[in-house]
Amino acid sequence: MPSWVDGRPAESLSIKDRGLAYGDGVFETIAVRAGRPPLLEYHMARLSTGCARLGIALDVALVRTEILSFASKLGEGVAKLILTRGDGLRGYAPPPTTQARRILQGSPMPAYPSVNAEQGVELYPCATRLAEQPLLAGLKHLNRLEQVMARAEWQSTEYAEGLVRDISGRVIEGVFSNLFLLVDGVLVTAELSRCGVAGVMRAALLERAKAVGIPVEIRDIEFDELLAAQEVFLCNSLYGVWPVRAMAGHHWSVGPLTRTLQAIARDLLDN
Amino acid sequence: MPSWVDGRPAESLSIKDRGLAYGDGVFETIAVRAGRPPLLEYHMARLSTGCARLGIALDVALVRTEILSFASKLGEGVAKLILTRGDGLRGYAPPPTTQARRILQGSPMPAYPSVNAEQGVELYPCATRLAEQPLLAGLKHLNRLEQVMARAEWQSTEYAEGLVRDISGRVIEGVFSNLFLLVDGVLVTAELSRCGVAGVMRAALLERAKAVGIPVEIRDIEFDELLAAQEVFLCNSLYGVWPVRAMAGHHWSVGPLTRTLQAIARDLLDN
Repeated sequence: MPSWVDGRPAESLSIKDRGLAYGDGVFETIAVRAGRPPLLEYHMARLSTGCARLGIALDVALVRTEILSFASKLGEGVAKLILTRGDGLRGYAPPPTTQARRILQGSPMPAYPSVNAEQGVELYPCATRLAEQPLLAGLKHLNRLEQVMARAEWQSTEYAEGLVRDISGRVIEGVFSNLFLLVDGVLVTAELSRCGVAGVMRAALLERAKAVGIPVEIRDIEFDELLAAQEVFLCNSLYGVWPVRAMAGHHWSVGPLTRTLQAIARDLLDN
Repeated sequence: MPSWVDGRPAESLSIKDRGLAYGDGVFETIAVRAGRPPLLEYHMARLSTGCARLGIALDVALVRTEILSFASKLGEGVAKLILTRGDGLRGYAPPPTTQARRILQGSPMPAYPSVNAEQGVELYPCATRLAEQPLLAGLKHLNRLEQVMARAEWQSTEYAEGLVRDISGRVIEGVFSNLFLLVDGVLVTAELSRCGVAGVMRAALLERAKAVGIPVEIRDIEFDELLAAQEVFLCNSLYGVWPVRAMAGHHWSVGPLTRTLQAIARDLLDN
């Protein structure tokens, strides 16, 4: 599997990198199929937002070119891109940088059981709550201890994903997925202005759903609304859409809207 | 300046390290004087707490021995220790580790202006607020984007430190220091159970203050209490104690309790 640092093959990095010191950077997990990265422009848009918010200099054209070359070399699998503020001296003050450091790592596509997509998954109800930090909400930054702690809550393969809520108990997302509900004919997903990661598949599905006339709402979701939803599904940019069939003794059936969005996601990843 | 990874001279690290990927680890910034690390047992105690909370395996004796050897080699300056969960595959799930990865970096002692300790500092009132995450509060973990953003708010050397408050506006700490107030004869510092970093100098000063009969309270601090305090000072394990003389047009005088604690801090760092 290839791995690059700043465009050159490398498997190691300076220990002075601020990505290590402070999580001072952002990342993208990019599906690669037949040497191409689907959803590339969504990934680029999120990188731009993240770097702008953190004040990290980003050469969009250079990064796009590197992702394309890397994907072509990788062929099939996952390209993980980490952008950091580069090396730092001691201290939190961001040094003036000319260029974000680019780290690309290839790995095989995870072998998710096909039953996840076909019959749906059971969610583990995580006790770990997401803190509210509007300055960082929505970004896929490198400060991910909350996700590490939430994911560490279960070991059983019975649970394909976990549900994470915010400090107030509102429903936010999965540990490595976004969550959608069908509520009275409306496709609902959580507002991510206080916490959560705004996934690229979430963005793509919202766009496509609107385009085909499905009513969409982005708003706060109370826990009871999740339980009462007619359909529930998860999405991310690697597996597409997984229906949610159960959590903590509660059951949902896999419905037609979920299957429609699943087909759209499959289409997005195939192109 | 020496730098070690897992006890051996090295300046680079695997790009698979989870410290880089997720900020999955903790760190300590350790003063080194005449080849010795003062406050070592306070640093070790915080490392133990942090690793226990994150579920990272820590060989306390090994880490203590490495810090002592590194300090002896460094002589004078700062030893920064980063402990991470080590390499990971893709995905948040913590792999079973046998041993935390140890990264030690030496740097010169920062050349703080002597006027900071002598006449006191002006605080920059940071707009960045700390999110409330009880699972991580108090730890010196590697998820430090809030501190990076707060520190990026000012460039002028007029401000030696910044004040950071929580989401509700309560007074928590400096960007790289803890904060103490004198309120009606009581030494007060913020409760750090929802956010903030519990500094080793804070812990040492609290212990010494109690030992010499100074009344101490650890509790929530409203912004108005800071403004009304008779004395205000900052501390950390590198510079000891800095009186705070001003913030946003408000002024405090440097009082006798601050000078007492400053002498105690000097003594702690000299031994």
